[in-house]
Amino acid sequence: MATLIAPSNHSPIEDAQALRHAFKGWGADNKAIVAILGHRNVHQRQQIRKAYEELFEEDLIKRLESEISGDFERAVYRWMLEPADRDAVLINVAIRNGSKNYHVVAEIASVLSAEELLAVRRAYHNRYKRSIEEDVSANTTGHLRQLLVGLVSSFRYEGDEINAKLAQIEANVIHESVKEKKGNNEEEVIRILTTRSKTQLVATFNRYRDEHGISISKKLLDQTSDDFHKALHTAIRCINDHKKYYEKVLRNAIKKFGTDEDGLTRVIVTRAEKDLRDIKELYYKRNSVHLEDAVSKEISGDYKKFILTLLGKQD
Amino acid sequence: MATLIAPSNHSPIEDAQALRHAFKGWGADNKAIVAILGHRNVHQRQQIRKAYEELFEEDLIKRLESEISGDFERAVYRWMLEPADRDAVLINVAIRNGSKNYHVVAEIASVLSAEELLAVRRAYHNRYKRSIEEDVSANTTGHLRQLLVGLVSSFRYEGDEINAKLAQIEANVIHESVKEKKGNNEEEVIRILTTRSKTQLVATFNRYRDEHGISISKKLLDQTSDDFHKALHTAIRCINDHKKYYEKVLRNAIKKFGTDEDGLTRVIVTRAEKDLRDIKELYYKRNSVHLEDAVSKEISGDYKKFILTLLGKQD
Repeated sequence: MATLIAPSNHSPIEDAQALRHAFKGWGADNKAIVAILGHRNVHQRQQIRKAYEELFEEDLIKRLESEISGDFERAVYRWMLEPADRDAVLINVAIRNGSKNYHVVAEIASVLSAEELLAVRRAYHNRYKRSIEEDVSANTTGHLRQLLVGLVSSFRYEGDEINAKLAQIEANVIHESVKEKKGNNEEEVIRILTTRSKTQLVATFNRYRDEHGISISKKLLDQTSDDFHKALHTAIRCINDHKKYYEKVLRNAIKKFGTDEDGLTRVIVTRAEKDLRDIKELYYKRNSVHLEDAVSKEISGDYKKFILTLLGKQD
Repeated sequence: MATLIAPSNHSPIEDAQALRHAFKGWGADNKAIVAILGHRNVHQRQQIRKAYEELFEEDLIKRLESEISGDFERAVYRWMLEPADRDAVLINVAIRNGSKNYHVVAEIASVLSAEELLAVRRAYHNRYKRSIEEDVSANTTGHLRQLLVGLVSSFRYEGDEINAKLAQIEANVIHESVKEKKGNNEEEVIRILTTRSKTQLVATFNRYRDEHGISISKKLLDQTSDDFHKALHTAIRCINDHKKYYEKVLRNAIKKFGTDEDGLTRVIVTRAEKDLRDIKELYYKRNSVHLEDAVSKEISGDYKKFILTLLGKQD
């Protein structure tokens, strides 16, 4: 379930005019920006962008970028992009020299469906004039490259079939690799993770837990020091249960010294129209505190208002 | 230019009835089968299949398989499939245990456009309930796996931009790898070949030839003993000039002791509606003999009639 609260009827033209009004004079009326854009779904936002362009002959997103700043700007910017285009931007930012948040690439590629991932690959072409695999592979080497390129290039079968025998065999392959910690089985682990259907992989992960009394993601936790193992861990968690994964990203983002606004924004903007309500419930069960309350203590200003609005807070 | 001669107007129902008539009694009227199906384009063939199913409540392709046999059956069967489905079958046959024609996988993945390759990946899901990368990677290891999985999973950027400096750098990377023959640069060569746009790769290959006075594919020829180098060579040739590549496949198929019917059928069925006329011209220029005449000497019977029909021979 989503957290976004959007009216069933809205006028794109009136919204565009109200935004134009909010931009007037020194400093924008950020409250108005949040009140409008924080309550419109992806289709409505695209309509507003189109109406704004037609009425005022300027790009709404560019104007927003010049009117607002900081975390607020970054969150509104990501929110305004269509989901596939947003993921393309998130991947590009994650692999750009200097940032190297490779686990974000693994996250996006592992959470999306085959067709959704493909839409991101198309969006990446349009925006950067290169392919995702081209940029990912040019910035990585060895097993990390193999894993990430495999994940972003996958077009997984999405049927419900489970091959129980295969699950057992491949649970053992993963076990051998994790046990040895020598890395001579890593190519097989990468093959399994990047090519099998998610249904099959969950069966394999379950089989692993049944046999070894611990989940593969927990087992991997003591090896997540390098980028490869971090990305591997992320992919397994996202395939296994992406809502639980996102809950943990939020938990870590909040409890971090200084707050990880990028992680916080990414999860909330990406999931607000999808399953953020479920993630919120998981958060409450896990932490005995409401996500809104935890977030409220850590961030401030217009950024805080915007994030809380996307979290479904009634005005 | 295509070689297929198909009427602009035809009646799918009359065609279906004529085929049904051809199946009557002991042994099918193969001449009628060739006369109809050898002169229908992909859209018309699908219409005939649909009309046949509706009229006679049986699958035309299954019926054809039971009526005819040998090379003729195989050629008609491949011809009747939609192109993406046909390529899915060709890939599956190529990697099935025992055959291991890995270069066919490299050929198909390298010749197709990004969207065409994607259609093959979808067709493979539908037909085999697995992904191409899943089957390819389960049947290969090491560099061969990396290359083939990279090729079948690629979604190349298709813009016209060329980065001349990058072409120079990567021509050198390829040169170092080919020169050393030690294989410690192969992962970089695989990265370049599987991720760069075809336009960029052609620039890189040209740069290589300019600097070293020999084309990269010729240079690689003395290393094509193993499956990896054979697939690498195929990918480079297909990206560089797929018509020249197909001409050579035909030349080798014909001059081989015993004729390689699979190669012959694959090229003719796959290209008859696309650019087989150009390939025929290349063949004539290279061999001073018409492709139809060369083929005529090597094969016989209904298979020969069918292949010559697809080659554009007037009845």
